[in-house]
Parts: sequence; C-alpha cells; structure tokens
Amino acid sequence: MEINPCDKPVKGGSALPSRVSRKSHEENTIVTVNGVRVGGSEVVIIAGPCAVESREQLFETARSVRAGGANILRGGAFKPRSSPYNFQGMGEEGLKLLSLISKETGLPVVTEVMDTRQVELVSSYADMLQIGSRNMQNFPLLKEAGMCRKPILLKRGMMSTIEEFLLAAEYILSQGNDQVILCERGIRTFETSTRNTLDLSAVPMLKRLSHLPVIVDPSHGTGLRWMVPSMAKAAVAVGADGLIMEVHYKPETALCDGSQSLSLDEFDGLMTDLRKIANAVDREILVQKTTTV
Amino acid sequence: MEINPCDKPVKGGSALPSRVSRKSHEENTIVTVNGVRVGGSEVVIIAGPCAVESREQLFETARSVRAGGANILRGGAFKPRSSPYNFQGMGEEGLKLLSLISKETGLPVVTEVMDTRQVELVSSYADMLQIGSRNMQNFPLLKEAGMCRKPILLKRGMMSTIEEFLLAAEYILSQGNDQVILCERGIRTFETSTRNTLDLSAVPMLKRLSHLPVIVDPSHGTGLRWMVPSMAKAAVAVGADGLIMEVHYKPETALCDGSQSLSLDEFDGLMTDLRKIANAVDREILVQKTTTV
Amino acid sequence: MEINPCDKPVKGGSALPSRVSRKSHEENTIVTVNGVRVGGSEVVIIAGPCAVESREQLFETARSVRAGGANILRGGAFKPRSSPYNFQGMGEEGLKLLSLISKETGLPVVTEVMDTRQVELVSSYADMLQIGSRNMQNFPLLKEAGMCRKPILLKRGMMSTIEEFLLAAEYILSQGNDQVILCERGIRTFETSTRNTLDLSAVPMLKRLSHLPVIVDPSHGTGLRWMVPSMAKAAVAVGADGLIMEVHYKPETALCDGSQSLSLDEFDGLMTDLRKIANAVDREILVQKTTTV
Amino acid sequence: MEINPCDKPVKGGSALPSRVSRKSHEENTIVTVNGVRVGGSEVVIIAGPCAVESREQLFETARSVRAGGANILRGGAFKPRSSPYNFQGMGEEGLKLLSLISKETGLPVVTEVMDTRQVELVSSYADMLQIGSRNMQNFPLLKEAGMCRKPILLKRGMMSTIEEFLLAAEYILSQGNDQVILCERGIRTFETSTRNTLDLSAVPMLKRLSHLPVIVDPSHGTGLRWMVPSMAKAAVAVGADGLIMEVHYKPETALCDGSQSLSLDEFDGLMTDLRKIANAVDREILVQKTTTV
Repeated sequence: MEINPCDKPVKGGSALPSRVSRKSHEENTIVTVNGVRVGGSEVVIIAGPCAVESREQLFETARSVRAGGANILRGGAFKPRSSPYNFQGMGEEGLKLLSLISKETGLPVVTEVMDTRQVELVSSYADMLQIGSRNMQNFPLLKEAGMCRKPILLKRGMMSTIEEFLLAAEYILSQGNDQVILCERGIRTFETSTRNTLDLSAVPMLKRLSHLPVIVDPSHGTGLRWMVPSMAKAAVAVGADGLIMEVHYKPETALCDGSQSLSLDEFDGLMTDLRKIANAVDREILVQKTTTV
Repeated sequence: MEINPCDKPVKGGSALPSRVSRKSHEENTIVTVNGVRVGGSEVVIIAGPCAVESREQLFETARSVRAGGANILRGGAFKPRSSPYNFQGMGEEGLKLLSLISKETGLPVVTEVMDTRQVELVSSYADMLQIGSRNMQNFPLLKEAGMCRKPILLKRGMMSTIEEFLLAAEYILSQGNDQVILCERGIRTFETSTRNTLDLSAVPMLKRLSHLPVIVDPSHGTGLRWMVPSMAKAAVAVGADGLIMEVHYKPETALCDGSQSLSLDEFDGLMTDLRKIANAVDREILVQKTTTV
Repeated sequence: MEINPCDKPVKGGSALPSRVSRKSHEENTIVTVNGVRVGGSEVVIIAGPCAVESREQLFETARSVRAGGANILRGGAFKPRSSPYNFQGMGEEGLKLLSLISKETGLPVVTEVMDTRQVELVSSYADMLQIGSRNMQNFPLLKEAGMCRKPILLKRGMMSTIEEFLLAAEYILSQGNDQVILCERGIRTFETSTRNTLDLSAVPMLKRLSHLPVIVDPSHGTGLRWMVPSMAKAAVAVGADGLIMEVHYKPETALCDGSQSLSLDEFDGLMTDLRKIANAVDREILVQKTTTV
Repeated sequence: MEINPCDKPVKGGSALPSRVSRKSHEENTIVTVNGVRVGGSEVVIIAGPCAVESREQLFETARSVRAGGANILRGGAFKPRSSPYNFQGMGEEGLKLLSLISKETGLPVVTEVMDTRQVELVSSYADMLQIGSRNMQNFPLLKEAGMCRKPILLKRGMMSTIEEFLLAAEYILSQGNDQVILCERGIRTFETSTRNTLDLSAVPMLKRLSHLPVIVDPSHGTGLRWMVPSMAKAAVAVGADGLIMEVHYKPETALCDGSQSLSLDEFDGLMTDLRKIANAVDREILVQKTTTV
C-alpha cells in the first residue's frame, strides 16, 4: 500500500527508483532494435529525415544514410508541432513508407508515437517507438509504451531534470518493458544562440545512475546544421552509446527542421570523423551488414 | 496547402496564431463554467484539494471552501505523478465524488484529464476539464479537448514560452472550442527556494495578446503554504481573472502537495484580504448564490 | 581560524549568514535615506531617469516625479553598459547635477557606483549608493560599500539565488554598515517576451529570511513601459517596502532604456492606483513634505 | 558623438562588436602566455589548485602537473567567495609563491584579479590575469585589464549569453589589449545534478563568431571530480583550444573546491586519454620543454 505518495519537488535529489537504477542492475543493459545492439561497445548511428514527406524524399535519404554507415533509420509520421497549422505528418501513410524502405535497406526504423491510441498502430510498423520531449511526462503514454513489446527511445524533456527523466523511464520499466534507450536532446536555458543547450554532462550522469543506454541528438540540441558535427564528435567522446541525427536529401526544401538537417555529403564526411573519435575512446561504429542492399 | 510547415525555434516571437489573438477578437472572452463567469469584472476563486482522497476529505473541504467564498471546486481524480510509485488518484471513483459534492454545494467542478481516452469519461462528470502543465504540448489531447463541449482550463507548461502557451490554446480553439481559460502556474528557473517561479508578468502579457481569461495558481507557483496568500494578492493586483488554490481540511495529512495547501482557516482569512485588493483594482469577488446549501 | 572555507554549490540552501538573518535581528530594519524611512509601514517610491543625460532632462523629470509623489530621486551617472561603445554616463558632472536638483526638490538621491575607486566620490554627492545587478558579487565593491557611511541599495543579480543575494548583503553588513535595502529586479529565464522575469516571490521570501527592507524594480524587471504599472501594483500587494522606477520626461528620446521608462503622465496616473493598493494592504505612500519647493 | 547609446535587451542577437568579431580579423588570434601559444594547433592544458593554500600544497601540485604534461599553472591568490566568512585567499603572499614555483617549473602562471586596484600588483607577478565569471560584466575591471600588457583569461558569466560574453571581451580589446582567451565554464540552468551546465556548444559558436582562442573549464562546469575527465575529452573533441582544470595534491583536504579537483594520479591518467582525442581531431598536446626542471 502507498504510504507517502506525495510528489516532492524534485530538487535536491531523492532516492532513485529501483528498476532504472544501476544499483538494481549493475551491468549495462543492451537494447536490441531488430538486431542492432545499443549499449555495448559499438556506437550506434540513427539517421534520417525529421519528417517523412514523400516516398522519394524518404527513400533517397534512407538509401544514402545506409550507404554512409547509419545503423537505424529515423523518420516522423506523426509530428508534434507547436502550431496546429503546421505540417502534422503523413500519419499511417508515412508508417507504410518507413516499413517499405526498412525492408529494402535492412535498417530498423524508429518513429514517434504521440497518443496512447496510436501505440498499437505504430508498433505494427516500427522497430522502435520514440516518445518525444513534449511527452516525456505523458504518463499514460509511458505506461502504454511499457506494455508494448517494442524497444522505446525516450527523449529527455527540454526542461526535465535528470531525476525526472529517470522516473519517466521507470514508468516504462514498471510495466515490464526494460528495452529503453535514453536520449539527451538539449535543454531549455536562457541562451538563445542555439535552439537548445545540449547538456552533454547528462551522458556520464545518466550512465552512472542507470544501466540503460544513452544516446545524443545533436540536431535538436543545437538547431544549427553547421554545429551538428562538432557536437556529434563531443557526444561520442563523452561516452554516448549512439547518436540520432537529422539528414535530408535536400535540406533547403525540408518541410520540417531543414535548418538543422545535414545534407547527405555532410553526413558522409561526419561519419569518417566519428570513427576516429570512437576509436580514441576504444569504441567502434559498425558498418551495417550488406545482405539486403 | 501547407507552404511553410516548419516549426521555427519559437524565439523572438513570430506572428501569433489567429483565433486566440486579440487582433481577431478584440473583446474579452467570457468563459461560463456551469453558470460561473470567468473573464468579466469578477475575480473567480477556484479552490479544493490537490487530489480527491476520500469522501470525507473531499466533502469537508468542499463545504468549507464554499462557505469561505469559493466559486468553483477543484480536485484531481487522475493525477500526473513524477514517480509511477506515487498515488495516481482515485480515478472514476473520484469523479463520482466530485459530481456528488458539486450537486450538494452548487459549485461547478474542474478536474484534470491526462489521456485522450479519458476525455469522454471526465466530461460526463466535470463542468470544466483541466489540461495540466506536463500535457500543455500533448497535441492529441489538446485536439480532443477542442472537440468536447466543456470549458477547458489550460495550464502553462513549466518550460513553455508565452507564445507556445498561446499556440497550445490555439490547438483547442482550432477544433471549435473557444471556452478556454489560461492559467499561469510558475515556470522552472535556476531558483530553488520556491518550487517554481510564479511569472506574474505572464498575466498582463497574455491579456494583451489574447482575449482569453487568465488565472493564476499560487499553490504550484510557490510550493509553500505560507507564501500562497502574498502571491494570491499580487495576482489579483496584477489583473488576473481568477485564482486556483489548493485547500485541504488537514494539510499535514494530505496524500499530495500538503506542503502547499492552505488550511480551511487560512483560506477564510485570505478571502477577506483578496476582496480588499479586488476592490482596489475595481473588481469584485462574488459570493456564490446559496440556493443549494 | 577557518575550518571549512569552501564555497559549496549554493543549491539546497545552507545555513544563512548571521547578520542579515532575521534570526539574529527579529525586528524589521528601517533604513533612513536622508530622512526618508524605508522598511516601515510606508511604501517608498524611488523614481527618475535611467541615466542623467542633461541638466534639462534631469531637472524636469525630477521636479515632475516630486510633484507626482516620489520620495527619492534615482539617476545614473556611471552606467554599466553591455557594449563599450554605448553611452557610459556623465560621470562626476552627472553627480553634480543630481546634487543640485536634490537640494532644490528636497528629494534624497540614489545613484550607482561601479568601481571601488569611485565609492568615495559618489558618497560625497549621493544620499544612497546603488550596487547594480552585474556587481552583486563584486566582493571588493561590497566590502568598500560596507565601510562607507551611506545606505546601500543592493540589486539582485539576474542570475543569483536568494541565498547568494543575502550572502552578498552579508558582505556589506560584515564591514559594519547595516543600512542595506534589497532590490528584486528580475531574473534571467528562458522566457523572452519580457526583458527579465520579475520574481515577486522573492519579496515574501527575503522578508521572511531577513530583516532588511525589500523593494522592487518593475522597469528592469519587465523592460516594457506598458507593463510597469501592473507589476508595480503587484509588487505593493505582495508586500514590497518600495518601488524603484524609471521615469523620463521624453521617453522616446531617452539615451538609455527609453522603452521601459514611464512618461510623467503615466507616473502620475500610476501613483493614484498605487495608493489604493497600499491602503488595501494597510500601508501608505507618503507625500514628501513641501518645505523646499 | 553617441547616437543610439541604449543597451537593447540582448535577445535575438544584434550586430557583433567589431574588434572581437571574425569579420574584422579572419585569422585565429594566437595568444602567447610567456612563450606558450594558445589558439594554434596545440591544445593547451592549464592545471593547478583552485586556491593557493600553502607553499607545500602549491609546489607539490605544480611539480606534479608539470610532470604530467600541463603547459600553464593556475592558482588563486584572491578568491571570490559567496560568503564573506569563507577563505578569501592568501593575497600577495600567494602571488609570491606562484611566482617562485613558476620560475622553478618553467610554467607560466595565471591567477585571478578581482579589483581594479589589484591589476598592477597581480600583473607584476602573473603571466596571465584571469577575470572570473562573477566579474564578467565588471566593466571598470575589463577596461583596466584592457590597459595592462598581460594576456587576459576571461571566463563566461554563469548567466551570460554568447553575445554578452563577446561584448565583455570587446571592452578589453577596445582599450588596446587583444591578448584575450575566452573560457566556457558552465552556465546556470534548472538542472541541479551538476554544479553548472557546461555549454560545449559555446565553443564552436564562439570560434565561428570570433577569432579569439576558446578554452573550457570542466571543473567548475561540472563540480564533480569523477565527471571532469569525460567532459574534458568532449571539450577537446568539440574543438576547444585548451582546458583549465583544478588539480590538488590532496583533494580531500582542499580549502576550496576539493570535490571537483582531480588528484595527481587522475590528472596523469586523463592526459593520456586527452592526447588520443587531440590526435583524432588533428591536434596535439605539447609536452613542456624541460630546460628548467
């Protein structure tokens, strides 16, 4: 029975919840996304467009990031947009396209789910479900994700403390799903020269407190295409288990977040640099097996 | 057709959306909550416990705030809690209790809805639906609220700019529901001596930009019972159309947020002070008609 | 001897220093600025231009705020400006003008000091020395202020916690000067629609923790002329012992902060409203004795 | 004559000042600190205790960081402390010790200056003057630093925007001293698990906007000894021109900031890792010439 069910202000750091805590599980958890391991010695690269906009856009981008060395494909079918008058995503049509290109390229697919009522649908197409920053404390959605059998990519809320982030993950684990990847994607601060402030110290902190894999999103974290490579390198150096980055075959025409999307060439160049950093911290970036292409 | 659907970083202030804007609707909107007008010359007082915990707790508190001059009753049946192991609310049982005491006291009831799947259920018991801070950018929930026929109390996200707050309201209005009350409840800053930083400048700013009523929550805004009266008075002085406050018949035993809940006596004393401030800014706090008690 | 001299991160709130603490001095301290009492039942109004720009500008503004009911005159002679190429103030010439108009109007004068080397000079002209936000942790300046025999108006740093603010005041008191007025002037947050976020909860918090008088600066706190009156009223309602506001005889031509300066007419209108709020909280705004005009 | 001298709220980014801007000076500026070049292809390591506490403490630490590969020695003689009752530094006695060990080890020395009246004294002992976070907008001190003939290490204010930081540097350059190194040391945010939030995106941003060298302080940026190595590696990966780190021969007994100081062994181990990262980004960490030891 509940004894003290009160939410204390999460300042000062209370005891961490049990399932996400490294105290309850000393070894690193490896999350497997349709064969791709996240949380081991490999640094995993997730790349693709912000939103699925068309067959051509998605397929060209996917093939290219596959060739450049990405391990998992990202792409949004349901898009959380600040304004109701902005492009809201292609919906199930987008999911179908993701599924098609996933089969062709062999890349597992991660895509966002925004509504408890969408979990089943999205699960039927995607290999991993993303819960976005704005939904990090959407508790019914977290519980629903905890009851599905797919890995979950949980992004940190843009004004969430480390403790709240881990408690949100605990909601998923408490329902029986321990395949959770944490993603630092920038927090909101007073600084306005970048879209958010990418808090790379969250990576060592989360890995110390929890056994779950931690990846970094330098695209949303900076909002600036030219800055993504620098921050991606820093993320690998600091110990991230992977990166999720926006890549677009024609960034200047993107329907969403074009200003922070890498071009295909920029992505290729960056992969070369990332391999050097990964080696310097005794890790590696795997090349996807080429059986299907 | 969508021309530029991209979410720009919401810094620097883009053009405001049309329906919430005062440019599209010069007059103040009056939201009517089962007979109680919000947004007119009256200052409306919403009071009650954080969470419905039991029949006794709810009924005693409700009768007392009614006697003290509250116009609307608050109480949570579904509670968003940072930890999955905290009290999650009484659910439909709580809704039924709210409905019963509402009939007895004549006070309309506002309670939180957290999931698109709950909107119909909650609407069938409550006079107004609250969308909480953590769900301010839960866009499917906002749309669902826009399609129901009850007034909506929308709380500002603790990390949300004024512009994002108005865009969230626009989601509701865009679905045909213009009965929306905006609520400032404190933002997250570096300061740790209070639970949040109550941003009272949001009140004149929101009223200048929009025609919607604006109320203030000094309980969550401060997290400190002793500070609630001071900030409540300031909120009325700054021009708020109402207050929402946590009151508990035994704050020290509350299952949720006891440290910021007023006792019944404190509430009574505060009401006297608030009437003076309301008069000083040419407004009034109405006493609920006593037909039903 | 120093045992544990280490600066701990000021989160979570350590024990407060002794001299500023209400524990060491239960009664409110009254600071007397050349006859004007701050910290008693009166609400004190400090008004004047951001910077002294010319004899005409200062004198016309001073006479007008005097007529409107101000109790103390403000005006900067040494100006801290973000850019070295901005107007840096009139220096000693400005101090002389302040001294002249002080004698004519009978209003005591407060002006900023930025450098330890200026303390003696500024003290010889002004009735109270202001230490600005950017210098709140300029410890040598605080010590120098603690050794002079004039009251000090200490503004909260825009990045400073309540605890750091009180520790800064302690620097002054520790040197033997207990005539210190604390001023909340807005903190820096993620919100960009206002220049700063005026943290009115700082007023009850500071008055609970300390015996020193607390005033509010709604001009810097909002950066918006039209919002100053609302926030000024809220500040009086919340319990501030005074207000410091920028007033300019021709705001549109001001060399500094014109966009947040009240016109003379706006100031007069506001004073009427403030008296009503002061009465509603059982305080009063005194009219300066007219012996000298 | 000044035309528009008004300080606009520094949001949204105005035109950058001329001397610090890369537009006025395309090439990277190399700052030379008594023979050590900062801003070239080398990554420079500045290490030493937070405060000079005794001859033994300073000399042992200095010799050891020298042996471990540090290029410049740091150590505070005048300490800015939140509380007046904390250890304020050894003053001139500390400067003399720094000067002695500098001669012995051949390491140039950087130490903080807090007061305009100290600039001459500190300049007579140190090879580089540090202006700390709390004094980043102490404009008289910046001007005085601009008139001295020593290089200046300018730390970013903990709540300063990139633009304000560059404008502060402009104050120094505007007086004729262009030997300025910028230092990112963490900003203040809502997150409390680290002492500050180290904003590594500031490094590429500053280097894009300005020609001045940029270094990073992972000790103050995290406040956690165990996290310093991770963030140091990330800082080199992101493109920093150097690091400044606190190292203490007995961290557990340090009079200041022991909880964030590396032990001598930890420093040695980190240097090995840093060389690998430096190589991965085509840079190198020089070993100090051993003529004097």
